[in-house]
Amino acid sequence: MAVDLLGGDDAPAVVVDGALRAVRADPDLHLLLVGPTEVAAGIVDALTPAQRTRITIRATRTAAGPTEHAPRADSTVRAAVSAVRDGAADALVSAGSTGATVSAAALGFGRWPDVRRPALVATLPAVSGPVVLLDVGGSLEPRPATLARHAVLGAAYAAVAHAVAAPRVGLLSVGTEAGKGDRPRRTADPLLAATALPGDARYVGLVEGYDVTSGIRADVVVTDGFTGNILLKAIEGAYAMAGGPPTSGGAPRAAALLGVAGTVVVCHGAATPDDVASGIALAAHLWRRRATDQVREQVALVPAGDGTDPEREDAPTRSAADRVHGVAVDSGPAPADPAVQNAPVARHAGHPPAYPGGTEAEVGT
Amino acid sequence: MAVDLLGGDDAPAVVVDGALRAVRADPDLHLLLVGPTEVAAGIVDALTPAQRTRITIRATRTAAGPTEHAPRADSTVRAAVSAVRDGAADALVSAGSTGATVSAAALGFGRWPDVRRPALVATLPAVSGPVVLLDVGGSLEPRPATLARHAVLGAAYAAVAHAVAAPRVGLLSVGTEAGKGDRPRRTADPLLAATALPGDARYVGLVEGYDVTSGIRADVVVTDGFTGNILLKAIEGAYAMAGGPPTSGGAPRAAALLGVAGTVVVCHGAATPDDVASGIALAAHLWRRRATDQVREQVALVPAGDGTDPEREDAPTRSAADRVHGVAVDSGPAPADPAVQNAPVARHAGHPPAYPGGTEAEVGT
Repeated sequence: MAVDLLGGDDAPAVVVDGALRAVRADPDLHLLLVGPTEVAAGIVDALTPAQRTRITIRATRTAAGPTEHAPRADSTVRAAVSAVRDGAADALVSAGSTGATVSAAALGFGRWPDVRRPALVATLPAVSGPVVLLDVGGSLEPRPATLARHAVLGAAYAAVAHAVAAPRVGLLSVGTEAGKGDRPRRTADPLLAATALPGDARYVGLVEGYDVTSGIRADVVVTDGFTGNILLKAIEGAYAMAGGPPTSGGAPRAAALLGVAGTVVVCHGAATPDDVASGIALAAHLWRRRATDQVREQVALVPAGDGTDPEREDAPTRSAADRVHGVAVDSGPAPADPAVQNAPVARHAGHPPAYPGGTEAEVGT
Repeated sequence: MAVDLLGGDDAPAVVVDGALRAVRADPDLHLLLVGPTEVAAGIVDALTPAQRTRITIRATRTAAGPTEHAPRADSTVRAAVSAVRDGAADALVSAGSTGATVSAAALGFGRWPDVRRPALVATLPAVSGPVVLLDVGGSLEPRPATLARHAVLGAAYAAVAHAVAAPRVGLLSVGTEAGKGDRPRRTADPLLAATALPGDARYVGLVEGYDVTSGIRADVVVTDGFTGNILLKAIEGAYAMAGGPPTSGGAPRAAALLGVAGTVVVCHGAATPDDVASGIALAAHLWRRRATDQVREQVALVPAGDGTDPEREDAPTRSAADRVHGVAVDSGPAPADPAVQNAPVARHAGHPPAYPGGTEAEVGT
């Protein structure tokens, strides 16, 4: 797991602490620490000799910075992406700016050809099982077609990452009757009803705020990144105030990025050491399940449409929708990155890869 | 307090139960039960003779119905509005369709002349004190000017209903730095910064989901009714899952309607008996503090602008924004309602009324 030591409001201290917890908790976990050598040394020094054999350092001195402009080529998040591309790591974890991480991942890995807008996917605990919530910040003003495509991503993710056999997919609105909601929801509801979903997933219609926390009506809740981001933070806050979520199964404080050809986990900027550790654990979990590639395979089996790009239909708002957290996302093929241009072809090349044999533990980080 | 016996998914049973709890909990509370006589009799029969002296019945047989069309003139919610207008009650409580209640109140009471869009205002418990959240469902796609006007409403409400001396008002977004958020937020943020707020209230800029549950950065959180409604339900759900909110001070399950010339409390359709009882208690609290009229006075001192109607500026989306939960809301003066036309002039006439002396208990419901 490549860990961006300089990402996050309280980096590097919080990331150092989180990385230590992750290494101690999982004896099969290997970390590639991307950041200043002296910061990485603070982690190494605190480990046992046996644990140190699971640490590698990639010296990098520049943070992506607090702003959401495209991150510099010499930044830790770009270096972490390069490390995954060149095979030095299997996945990357950053608590830095979401926009910077999404931008770096889209540039470095490339996006899946039939998913125009990557989505940040969070998993919330609920009594009846995990609830997958997307988007939680990648695409603030998605088109209805993007919401429909995210429904496909979320259904595949629930099946692959959480072993939900027949995911029920709902569209978040202010009531459950058809016609409830603002204009984007009223347009998206019939579109989702007509959208093919992977496997045994099915669309259950509009759901409400309660359903995000209860999980009774849906396993996957689709919304725009603006609503999802606010909702996730408020639910986290409510659980923090009330003394914790109902189950221990995964606090909702890290999100997976779907739609780019690599495994990426984003912790939020105000992450605690435990959040960083659980983000690293999530990345390891996803990698061990081959989740990103399996989702990609499932999504590829459910084409976006008739060959046209449905997410481009209403062009007038395109320039806004092409922005992720204020960062323009290039929609063309991944540009050549000098740092990775001569690297071996990444295993995440946008097509289903062939997998060598190996147990889960061997494939693990 | 006029109580709509037929409002809510589980009416009348839940409303009956809630009304009983409210009467037993507050010895100064008088209820006007609006609904079928036999339903009201179920409440009366369960009370002591002394408690029965605090009950009046207004026989009405028609529910507003589950749809969100304008409620029929003979519906319980319209009859409850009429009861308040003709002085038979001081405030009304309904767990029926939000759209129907808002529509009935706007028709029957009239809207405040300088507040085009009424707002539903919820109060959430937080460690550092109550957090006022608005709008939670009245106006799904507000203009930036409406968000600014709601900031004024929310600041006045925090001061009047919750005795917050200098309310800090935040605009909900996905980050706190200027420029964070979708287009409506990026437009509204500088507008709110330039908006005069009542009393000692001040605008603190963008806030995040955490701030809704923590209360650390803001006392008043302004958002659109779509996000607010979803957020409120999800937070309620999270507290229910985690075993309750951090303080007992007001579970967030009833909302006050601001912007109409009457005291109105909306419980949501899935209300429990305790929710209905706390909604009745909220209405009584607001009435005892003269909250609606005091908010109205404070808002009238902060004009909406230069005489033009700022909420009408961007006309192209007006027809959509004029709809509340799918119900068209007339923006003219309140039409003559045969049921109230010959009633004494209501005390909520859109101007600061003169109040007779009286202790709080005497003025109480």
